[in-house]
Amino acid sequence: MKHALAFDIGGTKIYSTTIDETGAVTGEIDKFSTPKTLDEIKSILKTQISKYEDKVDAIAIATAGAVNNENTGVIGSTGNLVQGYNSIDFQKLSTKKVFLENDANAAAWAEYKIGASRGSKVSVLLTLGTGVGGGIIINDRLLKGKSGAAGEMHFKMYPDKRRKCTCGGWDCFEIYASGTALKIDAEEALNDKNVTTYDVIEGVKQNDKKMIEILNRWHNDIIIGIKGLTNLFDPDCVILSGSMAQFVDIKRVEEEVNSDIVTTPTSVRLATAGNYAGMIGAALLALERTV
Amino acid sequence: MKHALAFDIGGTKIYSTTIDETGAVTGEIDKFSTPKTLDEIKSILKTQISKYEDKVDAIAIATAGAVNNENTGVIGSTGNLVQGYNSIDFQKLSTKKVFLENDANAAAWAEYKIGASRGSKVSVLLTLGTGVGGGIIINDRLLKGKSGAAGEMHFKMYPDKRRKCTCGGWDCFEIYASGTALKIDAEEALNDKNVTTYDVIEGVKQNDKKMIEILNRWHNDIIIGIKGLTNLFDPDCVILSGSMAQFVDIKRVEEEVNSDIVTTPTSVRLATAGNYAGMIGAALLALERTV
Repeated sequence: MKHALAFDIGGTKIYSTTIDETGAVTGEIDKFSTPKTLDEIKSILKTQISKYEDKVDAIAIATAGAVNNENTGVIGSTGNLVQGYNSIDFQKLSTKKVFLENDANAAAWAEYKIGASRGSKVSVLLTLGTGVGGGIIINDRLLKGKSGAAGEMHFKMYPDKRRKCTCGGWDCFEIYASGTALKIDAEEALNDKNVTTYDVIEGVKQNDKKMIEILNRWHNDIIIGIKGLTNLFDPDCVILSGSMAQFVDIKRVEEEVNSDIVTTPTSVRLATAGNYAGMIGAALLALERTV
Repeated sequence: MKHALAFDIGGTKIYSTTIDETGAVTGEIDKFSTPKTLDEIKSILKTQISKYEDKVDAIAIATAGAVNNENTGVIGSTGNLVQGYNSIDFQKLSTKKVFLENDANAAAWAEYKIGASRGSKVSVLLTLGTGVGGGIIINDRLLKGKSGAAGEMHFKMYPDKRRKCTCGGWDCFEIYASGTALKIDAEEALNDKNVTTYDVIEGVKQNDKKMIEILNRWHNDIIIGIKGLTNLFDPDCVILSGSMAQFVDIKRVEEEVNSDIVTTPTSVRLATAGNYAGMIGAALLALERTV
């Protein structure tokens, strides 16, 4: 049985564990706050790698940001990580080959191999968290595009500049469908900068009409986005994952999407590969490519 | 040298000619008004097929509507053709195999093989005409999706129901980027139901400020759509074809798209495979699949 040492490098936390070729987590989950300097990030990776590299067949990293088509480095779009992150020479961190994949792509691969999109020829995964990530699988391959950056959920929800996105552009799906978006929806509706997504979710539980309206608007924006993705990709299924997915009324989303598309109906589902899907997907991809 | 008898079946016209395996048109272009009944459509196809089928290696049809993954029939989305069009058993029309592909997909394939996207790993073609069609090529394959209907340019430009699309839904890219859209833009701006796209184009030539504003809005909507497609597909190039493409300021579109994307820059280009790109692409696809 082959094993990978896997990492998940996000803007807030770095996770690390070992994963076998069936996608099972076989080690402890190590957890670190993401440091603010490149040296400290590299130091965490090196320490973990030196502990495990003799016992594993591959090093697999799921990371924020776009990963190149060779799966050897990060090419950009990593606003939530320290500047210069894409300059790290990951291959120098280990004597073994270091395999990288974008975290949402890796999560999509985990769902495809052992989770909610198993058996699907075409699937779209959305990670709804602080931001929105995307991973698209077409005929047993991740959609990577010319440089590796495909699957970015930065299509526009309005053409006329209403809400600035974290990417620096305007009105991207991310800034209408993320947890951050739900907070902005609430801020706008209540004219209160201090309202939180937690307040919205709690308010809905207590049947607060205003909070229900806010959650409805967020749902509508997610639905609008999935309609467009469905017409573009004609997917077997759309998988929702990430910390915000639990607050989505999946049945409603599926019904509304399928009521207004020109392609054939799609299935909308919650992710099932769990919190470590990014590490699992990266490990499975890395081990597939290890002879 | 292999040859195909090729058709282009659209809402207004049916074209037919012969095309060889290099994509060269080798016969006369026959042209018919698209009849309003199934029997008359079938009759045109049968007459042409009986004339040519002994001399060609394949029958290739580029058609409006979504074509199944087996390329044997139409599965739907053909609002501009007579009802029941997708019930035609195309395989019964000839003793040879009849190969079908969606017209925009076929045009994308022609551009990829002999036109503006030659050598591109990932390309997106938009046909801007009465409506908007889409054809997406990823790693030497057309994106077809689970049922064959992928590449539909019906992602949403607003989330809040402003303009009804011809598909029956609301605010699709098609109804903001097509020739029909430019007319609607003008109608709305001038409060005049009788204004035409021709009036807009002529007005712009004469430096009419209002008409320039209207053409600007149409450009902006096209740009917004291409930004989203670029972030999703990370394409080498985006090709604009169809009767309206000549009115697009390609350089401006490319500059504005690349100023606001999270992927790497893309190239925006006019199609070069000509008016018969649909027939050429269908013929090339059909002949590739003919031993």
